[in-house]
Amino acid sequence: MNLDCFFRPKAIAVIGASNDPLKLGYEVFKNLRKYKGGKVYPVNVKEEEVQGVKAYRNVKDIPDEVDLAIIVVPKNFVKGTVVDCGEKGVKGAVIITAGFGEVDEEGKKEERELVEIAHSYGMRLIGPNCVGVMNTLNDMNATFIMDAKKGDIAFVSQSGALGAGIVYKTVKEGIGFSKFVSVGNMADLDFAELMEYLAETEEDKAIALYIEGIRDGRKFIEVAKRVTKKKPVIALKAGRSESGAKAASSHTGSLAGSWKIYEAAFKQSGVLIAETIDEMLSMARAFTQPLPRGRRVAIMTNAGGPGVLTADQIDRRGLRLAELEEKTIEELRSFLPPMAAVKNPVDMIASARGEDYYRTAKALLQDKNVDMLISICVVPTFAGMTPTEHAEGVVKAVKEVNNGKPVLGLFMAGYVSEKAKEILEANGIPSYERPEDVAAGAHALVEFAKARGVLEE
Amino acid sequence: MNLDCFFRPKAIAVIGASNDPLKLGYEVFKNLRKYKGGKVYPVNVKEEEVQGVKAYRNVKDIPDEVDLAIIVVPKNFVKGTVVDCGEKGVKGAVIITAGFGEVDEEGKKEERELVEIAHSYGMRLIGPNCVGVMNTLNDMNATFIMDAKKGDIAFVSQSGALGAGIVYKTVKEGIGFSKFVSVGNMADLDFAELMEYLAETEEDKAIALYIEGIRDGRKFIEVAKRVTKKKPVIALKAGRSESGAKAASSHTGSLAGSWKIYEAAFKQSGVLIAETIDEMLSMARAFTQPLPRGRRVAIMTNAGGPGVLTADQIDRRGLRLAELEEKTIEELRSFLPPMAAVKNPVDMIASARGEDYYRTAKALLQDKNVDMLISICVVPTFAGMTPTEHAEGVVKAVKEVNNGKPVLGLFMAGYVSEKAKEILEANGIPSYERPEDVAAGAHALVEFAKARGVLEE
Repeated sequence: MNLDCFFRPKAIAVIGASNDPLKLGYEVFKNLRKYKGGKVYPVNVKEEEVQGVKAYRNVKDIPDEVDLAIIVVPKNFVKGTVVDCGEKGVKGAVIITAGFGEVDEEGKKEERELVEIAHSYGMRLIGPNCVGVMNTLNDMNATFIMDAKKGDIAFVSQSGALGAGIVYKTVKEGIGFSKFVSVGNMADLDFAELMEYLAETEEDKAIALYIEGIRDGRKFIEVAKRVTKKKPVIALKAGRSESGAKAASSHTGSLAGSWKIYEAAFKQSGVLIAETIDEMLSMARAFTQPLPRGRRVAIMTNAGGPGVLTADQIDRRGLRLAELEEKTIEELRSFLPPMAAVKNPVDMIASARGEDYYRTAKALLQDKNVDMLISICVVPTFAGMTPTEHAEGVVKAVKEVNNGKPVLGLFMAGYVSEKAKEILEANGIPSYERPEDVAAGAHALVEFAKARGVLEE
Repeated sequence: MNLDCFFRPKAIAVIGASNDPLKLGYEVFKNLRKYKGGKVYPVNVKEEEVQGVKAYRNVKDIPDEVDLAIIVVPKNFVKGTVVDCGEKGVKGAVIITAGFGEVDEEGKKEERELVEIAHSYGMRLIGPNCVGVMNTLNDMNATFIMDAKKGDIAFVSQSGALGAGIVYKTVKEGIGFSKFVSVGNMADLDFAELMEYLAETEEDKAIALYIEGIRDGRKFIEVAKRVTKKKPVIALKAGRSESGAKAASSHTGSLAGSWKIYEAAFKQSGVLIAETIDEMLSMARAFTQPLPRGRRVAIMTNAGGPGVLTADQIDRRGLRLAELEEKTIEELRSFLPPMAAVKNPVDMIASARGEDYYRTAKALLQDKNVDMLISICVVPTFAGMTPTEHAEGVVKAVKEVNNGKPVLGLFMAGYVSEKAKEILEANGIPSYERPEDVAAGAHALVEFAKARGVLEE
């Protein structure tokens, strides 16, 4: 299904765009003014201008074709607005306004009516009761929250607030998204249809789903089976535990369903399962890398402890430490200091410079017993060193060897690591901050490789 | 054992203090110039002045009693320096210099000799091969790394680099420490003796240990048993898995030992076990709060999803959702909007203001079925709101009710939450950013309450 109208519209109408900074329609229009893919028109029944831009009374008054409408009008005006959009020939509408199916049965009925109206005009809906939609590729932020960092993950969230929280948290952590979709009540478009669209895009390397409850399980499985043949899908399901399921049922009004059923459905359709938000993000981020041919990991580090903790975490996930070839060990011994450990994990010790990272990464990537590489850098403890040279060393090695083995980075020193992480990320190498996160990423690559049949074992 | 000379010295000598920014002795002296608890003297064999301060050729030339020496001289001069310190009457020395027991058997012998010399003068040693010691209470940073944020956790790390990485990472995350001790090779002082000292201090609410290998297991258990009667001890043991243990043995040169043995030792001595760095920190941070009487948790939130995820996480750890009293439900219904969920988790929905947080927290804390409270705030989605009013509401309720039930905060929106987190923390309420972290904190409180015999069940 082509949903380009939602993600690459030529013209967007913000219906309910406002001059009042306390209204959501203010934020949405403000955010969309940075849109690079086309025109953005404010619609407001009372104002001549919104934020200095000529406003229209009705979407139908806009002297241009409009493919996407963002609806942030009060609830009583939503139905009329959907009709107006239909008459205007709008192809997609995101209904941010709340107060529908999440409230009561009457609201559910109203929601269904909105969908019927939309479909009668050939229009599709996202929402109602959502935060909106972002496409960072063309700077489209059709939400009332801050811009996500640019990245490679398409993130679809059934909770608007949680989705917003995750966008905010990842800005701090330097984790980026290609798209963010808050699906709200999913009156029309749901996980299945969005996944199907996202499977075909170039820019979305992985699809991450935050799920509270799926209504049409059969449809989800059927679509997910097709999608996961092309692209990894990672799901975090809230309400896995008994307490959580109870909590979820009171939140969404629908039964969250037994975790066992969801788990079976995910496994059957090749959807990778995450237990926490950070695990979901860590898994999804790995897919800028090629798929590994096996589960043998080489670890290189400038400090022993982090190497050991990472070994623990990969072991816990069923990956294993590669046994290095004798010639690799000899090569490492030829330039690393005598105190360095030339077994896997390779501990280059604190004196390691960028050149050591480069030569070690190169030797490990060329080792035929190594399927993937994790490069760790804690804070360099020798004055005058910054982690950036370490990142540059790894990037140089990867470019030179270029043999399709995945490489993941682990930079564990907060602000001190930020620049180094950016260097790796700019070269498509995901860079993590915690041993369990880099292991989750490595594990996700192996699981997807296995599902795709490229794992040689 | 009184180790005040290491943490509250009246005078410190930095032996190897330097004017060369590329030397560790430069950083150590620079960091210590902010020390509030006493005088700091640079010692340098060549320089008249170090960083503008009159320097001494030898520690013995200092015209003042010196209780602590930080030794950062080249390896060949360490032994002589220790002798000088002994003759001067120094009570404690931190040997940052590396190249001893971590290298080879010869180094181990040299290390033992240093200890013998020190003991012959009644002096104790930390190190060698360490990053140093911090006490944030009196701004003592006797390390070559950046200042830790002030907090309530005493953190003892067997890996210097990892310890440094954790200090750096927590500065970014807003997590604080009361003390940081990098124990290095533990030639003299070890985990047991440090724990014993830290058990008696006012400012250290919990003791967190990063352990690679313990030499004297019997001593550790014997001391830990006593310490955990007074204060919680949380241990993260690297090398739990087979791969990790192999990695650890190559790193420390000593056998890491079977995890089963460590696990039994920790359990037997009441030490709480963490699986990751973040779990260790999350557990330790909870102990600014009183201990709960039971494992029944009330959750309040302004968004459903995070409440469900948190319910999942507390369930996973054997805690459970409290069943609210009827009168609590009635009270909540009296002021929360109709769409709010007045069951546990209480979903006050996105419109919740500070007043709602205040009244809800108050009602939940007064409920006799509630043993502890988790207050969640995602990003407030109504324009004009900031999470600070939510934090203030919770603080006000806790102060008014004041009935000894622990309260933990969960603010899930990165930079947007920082001010709110600070408000909670300034009032002794730990504030987390992830559901699994707040659940780890709650669980640690319950486990410690159980061990202390205050859990009524």
